[in-house]
Amino acid sequence: MAEIIEPRTLRGFRDSLPETESRKLEIQQELTRVFRSFGLVPIDTPAMEYAEILLGKGGGETDKQVYRFLDHGQRHVALRFDLTVPFARFMAAHYHELPLPFKRYHMGKVWRGENTQRGRYREFIQIDFDIVGVDSSSADFEIMTIMAESMVSLKIRAFHVHFSHRQLFNELLENMGLAGVYLPVLQAIDKLKKIGAREVEAQLVEISGKQRAREILGFITTEATNRETLNKLCSALPKGSQAVARLESILQCIEPCELDSVLLLDPSITRGLDYYTGVVFETFLDRVPDIGSVCSGGRYNDLASLYTKEKLPGVGASIGLDRLVSALEDLGVSSSAKTAPDILVVFLDEPLLGVYHKLSKSLRENGLSAEIYPSEKKLKAQLKYAEKRGIPLAIFHGENEKGRNEYNLRDLRTRQNYEALSFEGLLDKASELLK
Amino acid sequence: MAEIIEPRTLRGFRDSLPETESRKLEIQQELTRVFRSFGLVPIDTPAMEYAEILLGKGGGETDKQVYRFLDHGQRHVALRFDLTVPFARFMAAHYHELPLPFKRYHMGKVWRGENTQRGRYREFIQIDFDIVGVDSSSADFEIMTIMAESMVSLKIRAFHVHFSHRQLFNELLENMGLAGVYLPVLQAIDKLKKIGAREVEAQLVEISGKQRAREILGFITTEATNRETLNKLCSALPKGSQAVARLESILQCIEPCELDSVLLLDPSITRGLDYYTGVVFETFLDRVPDIGSVCSGGRYNDLASLYTKEKLPGVGASIGLDRLVSALEDLGVSSSAKTAPDILVVFLDEPLLGVYHKLSKSLRENGLSAEIYPSEKKLKAQLKYAEKRGIPLAIFHGENEKGRNEYNLRDLRTRQNYEALSFEGLLDKASELLK
Repeated sequence: MAEIIEPRTLRGFRDSLPETESRKLEIQQELTRVFRSFGLVPIDTPAMEYAEILLGKGGGETDKQVYRFLDHGQRHVALRFDLTVPFARFMAAHYHELPLPFKRYHMGKVWRGENTQRGRYREFIQIDFDIVGVDSSSADFEIMTIMAESMVSLKIRAFHVHFSHRQLFNELLENMGLAGVYLPVLQAIDKLKKIGAREVEAQLVEISGKQRAREILGFITTEATNRETLNKLCSALPKGSQAVARLESILQCIEPCELDSVLLLDPSITRGLDYYTGVVFETFLDRVPDIGSVCSGGRYNDLASLYTKEKLPGVGASIGLDRLVSALEDLGVSSSAKTAPDILVVFLDEPLLGVYHKLSKSLRENGLSAEIYPSEKKLKAQLKYAEKRGIPLAIFHGENEKGRNEYNLRDLRTRQNYEALSFEGLLDKASELLK
Repeated sequence: MAEIIEPRTLRGFRDSLPETESRKLEIQQELTRVFRSFGLVPIDTPAMEYAEILLGKGGGETDKQVYRFLDHGQRHVALRFDLTVPFARFMAAHYHELPLPFKRYHMGKVWRGENTQRGRYREFIQIDFDIVGVDSSSADFEIMTIMAESMVSLKIRAFHVHFSHRQLFNELLENMGLAGVYLPVLQAIDKLKKIGAREVEAQLVEISGKQRAREILGFITTEATNRETLNKLCSALPKGSQAVARLESILQCIEPCELDSVLLLDPSITRGLDYYTGVVFETFLDRVPDIGSVCSGGRYNDLASLYTKEKLPGVGASIGLDRLVSALEDLGVSSSAKTAPDILVVFLDEPLLGVYHKLSKSLRENGLSAEIYPSEKKLKAQLKYAEKRGIPLAIFHGENEKGRNEYNLRDLRTRQNYEALSFEGLLDKASELLK
């Protein structure tokens, strides 16, 4: 006999069992509905690309994590490690055949050979959405609205989309004569939500002295309302600040849409990536702050400069599906994804197999999902299977019932029986019980 | 300035643009609905696995096409080239925690470094569905029903699921004293739909002589009805044939479900793979026979023998999504997948940006999809964009209309205008026009 190969998966890679997979699909479906309601369209790109395309300038931390190899034609290829780089390449290749501005969403797997000790996975699903080809506050605000409506659609009640503008700090530090320490100041502030205000203050004091540190901390605090925060920024910055003007325009959209309590102007948001040039945003769940942002993004002024001379400004955000799934679990948000059909047709008499299949077909035609236990096993085994699957209803239809054209229905949750039903009666009772 | 990297994809890999991607997602959604109505549940497995798991015994033609490489930990890894092998590994790893019989579907990308000159792609989406843990005619028939209902759900009218049983030929050739030429006979018959009966007959004559060749060809011909075909098989085979008994039991399901005209007992179906041990099936579209089978499968008696001693018999089928998409195109089956929202809110006056966003929000809350043109461009440019996107309706709401609380609606398809509508009137008219 051949040796058995142990059926293991690679570290950092996971099987998705029916319950988890149903949940993931349910979330993707909900988000799709939201994206579509805003006129976003779906795209996909290959999982594998030329390494030079995906790595671009290269040299970053991500690079070491990228899965790269030689393919059958000795080409240097790599697996995508995010959906942003492939999207940039996609836009460079297709912008001339697409309507601009182009609004797309993209859901797909990405791979990173990360250190799994930090609870990270090496295969995960990203969900990205962007509006490309326009630099406007309307597009900025629309992306934020999509972020907020995405959270609402997933029944997350307590969340905030924190937003700011990357240029605020350039302008502020220049105004304070601190342009030289821009990077260390930003790095300190970026840690605010992780290490707290006191620790950040200590770091800022070291960089810029006590007085400046106080001023910077005062600047990045959120006030009671977005308007008050904006007024504070206004007074700290030189007149004609483009960052303030853009934020002002965004507030003028937030207010009539009554999103004040959800979209929060928060000058402490900086986002680490050089990539962003305008508004930036992060989404925090009030009741599970520790997991960090579940949906982040911002405005970039040139998406695809590596691949085309065409200027493609845009704004977008990204959701990590796997992190979101565990956040929803932590929040106790229940899923309405079902993994069981409505009805099990019990296999009582072998000669009635055709009758069972016809019955199952009629149930499906009437909008119910149904399966037939696929072999003539003891009733106990069949009902145990139904219980394990979580199937709520069972139909019993043996030779006797067939003779009388009758069906017996059992609610497996309450063990209540409903006997001698006509087919119409069966449909009515089943629909009633499933409500 | 940095050098531009050409934004190309690898040969055999394609971007999926919004129209194609919407179509693929629509098909996946339709099939999901069908699968769920039969109680099937979704799973997923990693794209990358240990090479020894995916290649197993190895040595086949597929092996050379598999993308394999060393990962960061110097492990031999590979990308999945189908969904069957990962499913076998999955079942070996999880059967003890799953309800058996286990009914699953799985949609996902697979990769093969195939010769692209034959119009093949190196990345494609497979859709598999199986019932595992039971060997019964009910499960065999259910998979065939799912195949048929899948085709119907995609609005394919003229199709046939051809089915047979792998053991028929073993029994027939043994009965004819031709067991020694089993393989060449099967290989000749397998080509029937490609090269025609005359050519197959010539090959069979060479293998077994004229008389035997005639008998074999007579055996594999379909008769006027499934019942007549079965009767012919019965008379050619020894009494007590298990293959005939299984087919008989399947016919007893086909008849009451009135699927006689769709599920066709066709003894010429053999399926090349050693893997299959029982019923086998292929699906042909009457009007595009050249593309071959769009959904094939069969019964296997031991899914996961490489990874576990647990016997896991099953039956399943597989759809190649990309081939199906082009088949539907060839058939001229129109898609109802939309890539455009219902309404464009025209950007007329910058100070009204907040009002436009509130309007768009109200439209969405009333079940309409809407987007705002994201910057204040000339009307002509905005309407050109709407046309390019295929957006059917546009709303005009400037300072004047705002003062009167009115909306102007234009049907961009007919260029008909509907003016001075209240918000309620706008909703009614838009819904009416979109019907």
